[in-house]
Amino acid sequence: MSEQESELLTKAELAVRARRSLGLMSTSQKNAALQAISGALIRRMDEIIIANDADMEAARRDDVQDYILDRLLLTPERVEDIASAVLEVVELPDPVGETIESRTVESGIIVDRRRVPLGLIGIIFESRPNVTVDISALCLKSGNCVILRGGKEAINSNKVLYDIVHSASVSEGMPVGWVQLIESTDRGVVGEMLSLRSHIDVVIPRGGKGLVSYVADNSRIPILETGYGVCHTYVHANADFEKASNIVINAKVRRPSICNALDSLLIDRSIAEAFLPDLARKLDRAGVELRVGTECSRIIGDGVAVLDLRDGDLDTEWNALRMAITLVDGLDEAIEHIQDHGSGHSEAIVTEDKLVGAIFLDEVDAAAVYLNASTQFTDGGEFGLGAEIGISTQKLHARGPMGLREMTTYKWVITGDGHVRA
Amino acid sequence: MSEQESELLTKAELAVRARRSLGLMSTSQKNAALQAISGALIRRMDEIIIANDADMEAARRDDVQDYILDRLLLTPERVEDIASAVLEVVELPDPVGETIESRTVESGIIVDRRRVPLGLIGIIFESRPNVTVDISALCLKSGNCVILRGGKEAINSNKVLYDIVHSASVSEGMPVGWVQLIESTDRGVVGEMLSLRSHIDVVIPRGGKGLVSYVADNSRIPILETGYGVCHTYVHANADFEKASNIVINAKVRRPSICNALDSLLIDRSIAEAFLPDLARKLDRAGVELRVGTECSRIIGDGVAVLDLRDGDLDTEWNALRMAITLVDGLDEAIEHIQDHGSGHSEAIVTEDKLVGAIFLDEVDAAAVYLNASTQFTDGGEFGLGAEIGISTQKLHARGPMGLREMTTYKWVITGDGHVRA
Repeated sequence: MSEQESELLTKAELAVRARRSLGLMSTSQKNAALQAISGALIRRMDEIIIANDADMEAARRDDVQDYILDRLLLTPERVEDIASAVLEVVELPDPVGETIESRTVESGIIVDRRRVPLGLIGIIFESRPNVTVDISALCLKSGNCVILRGGKEAINSNKVLYDIVHSASVSEGMPVGWVQLIESTDRGVVGEMLSLRSHIDVVIPRGGKGLVSYVADNSRIPILETGYGVCHTYVHANADFEKASNIVINAKVRRPSICNALDSLLIDRSIAEAFLPDLARKLDRAGVELRVGTECSRIIGDGVAVLDLRDGDLDTEWNALRMAITLVDGLDEAIEHIQDHGSGHSEAIVTEDKLVGAIFLDEVDAAAVYLNASTQFTDGGEFGLGAEIGISTQKLHARGPMGLREMTTYKWVITGDGHVRA
Repeated sequence: MSEQESELLTKAELAVRARRSLGLMSTSQKNAALQAISGALIRRMDEIIIANDADMEAARRDDVQDYILDRLLLTPERVEDIASAVLEVVELPDPVGETIESRTVESGIIVDRRRVPLGLIGIIFESRPNVTVDISALCLKSGNCVILRGGKEAINSNKVLYDIVHSASVSEGMPVGWVQLIESTDRGVVGEMLSLRSHIDVVIPRGGKGLVSYVADNSRIPILETGYGVCHTYVHANADFEKASNIVINAKVRRPSICNALDSLLIDRSIAEAFLPDLARKLDRAGVELRVGTECSRIIGDGVAVLDLRDGDLDTEWNALRMAITLVDGLDEAIEHIQDHGSGHSEAIVTEDKLVGAIFLDEVDAAAVYLNASTQFTDGGEFGLGAEIGISTQKLHARGPMGLREMTTYKWVITGDGHVRA
């Protein structure tokens, strides 16, 4: 057995041992632990910053890319934000123990469905130390034990944050070992986690497409896929141009790097001459690079610099101020295009025609479908779920934004009085 | 590309093409198709019986085991039962289109969660031709396209049953190709199905432990595991002996071959002398083979023949008139034993002590937990779900008996009027 495998197994066994008692903690016990974690983050700020400095220095030495450095960095303000986010979890309703339904069936037994934690969740994430705390807090509130495996660049920060989460929560009565941090930065440990069906109930990969695909291809444990989105907005012939223009710009420009940002714009050919030139100018002014075919290029005209649409552009999640534009002949072609090129994340139509809107909402198969709104709304907070574990891009268990409830399962609780089956 | 791969791909593409329109069929259209299927099964009875004769003859030639022959056999009465079961699906509520929740959130958008079909389901099952029809009917009612891959012994029966299901439903307006039967009996086709993430949304294995484990280990598609159960009944010190005896006998004897049947009986040491001898005699009379340790053997005494408990017996799903019996010292030890040896399927306690019962129901982590009732109740019909796709032994998506609703997912439907995210 390799060293990291023995680390993983030992820690998984400790977490499994804590599982039963964590699942039975009352809401007030769990909330007290969350408050203790939040307080300890502020109290131990200096330690966090010193550890993070070490991570940042090592990452700079290794010529890590700027956007990763930005995610890795912890400032006092960011630590305060993390501590506040933990307090927000205190305010969320506890999903555990809820009776989902209850009936007395013909045989006379009482059949209840009761919400319970999933058990032990494995989280594999990249070098964002805030995730260590966010996910721990959400798992704690939903009664789940958790094994964290973060990106190697954040290892010093993660060790301190983990120690804060564990010690503060245990001091408030949570079972020792309910949260575990894998310290080995060997890549092989991920493969080993994905085989540990005997211990881990669910694996959630949080990160880029590469990480998520790797986990989906290699896991022997049920997973919750998150994150990847090729999103469309379709401007129908009967769209209100001002609404359409605002929605498109917001869906692309507000935060271009997130998975619900617009990637491809579809416009009805019949309105392209009237709608596209003005929109293209606005997008250009906002710094958006436009990838278009010859017909769109001609319609947009000389005032705006565009690039030629290349193979694969219509299947690309840009995560940047860049988008493809293409023309379609009506609703059916738009839906076909979305089914062929979309990833089933967030898809929007802009139209004043209610029937057309209803058909689009019915027929497009995606986690979130929009009528006359920006796809950037796809978010647990915006949908009223409170904090978010991630956005599921699969169909089983949870679809779209996942909150605390999506971290639970249920059990059937049957009460009889000597009942036997006929 | 191998021949069976091309068969699979071609058929999966046809099913994907039917997916959008099947998902939009109204309840009455789907019910008319189900009625047509039921009628056609009776009308084409002779064809079914002739095809099944060919399967039975081939299976006998190949020295297939008796219990498989019994599952393979179709008699006119069994075909009538299959046709009636299809009519029962007509009566079940249609889960598709239900609005699960709806709220207007702070930003002003209306956020609905609406139930939709999963899409395209792949079913891998053994040589039980009734499954071809049962599953097709349940998928049709829940708006799902389906690819069926049955055991090779049933191939002739399955071809006729498939043709009946497809032609009768298409004649009532269901889209051509919504149901597909893989005719290749090559084992490699299963592996290829499990890689077809681009087409198939969910795979459900229906069959023995070997099949389910193979699918769980090899699938790159999300799966719903079914079927495997190592189930306990725990007789607590404060049990009513008559209830306990009835429950144990029912849980073992009523149908010993199903996954919710009792496998291991746990008895509190303090009541073993008073309770066990009489129970052992009753079980013996019912033809149950008892596997026990030396202490139990001594308590049972000479009147009843028992076998020695062997390594692994306490982790075995018997599927037969055979069970293990072991003694425990109280509730905690019983729960520990169940967590260590159970498969998380169905677990029961018999006790008149309400507090002890409540602790057991809370702490045992299983799909179904019972107080004073037989584990044989774990079944979609008995729990009030109507027909059953199978019993899930995983925690994600669905746990325990799965009915039509468990064959659906949801989408978020967002309605705005030009709303953009701040």
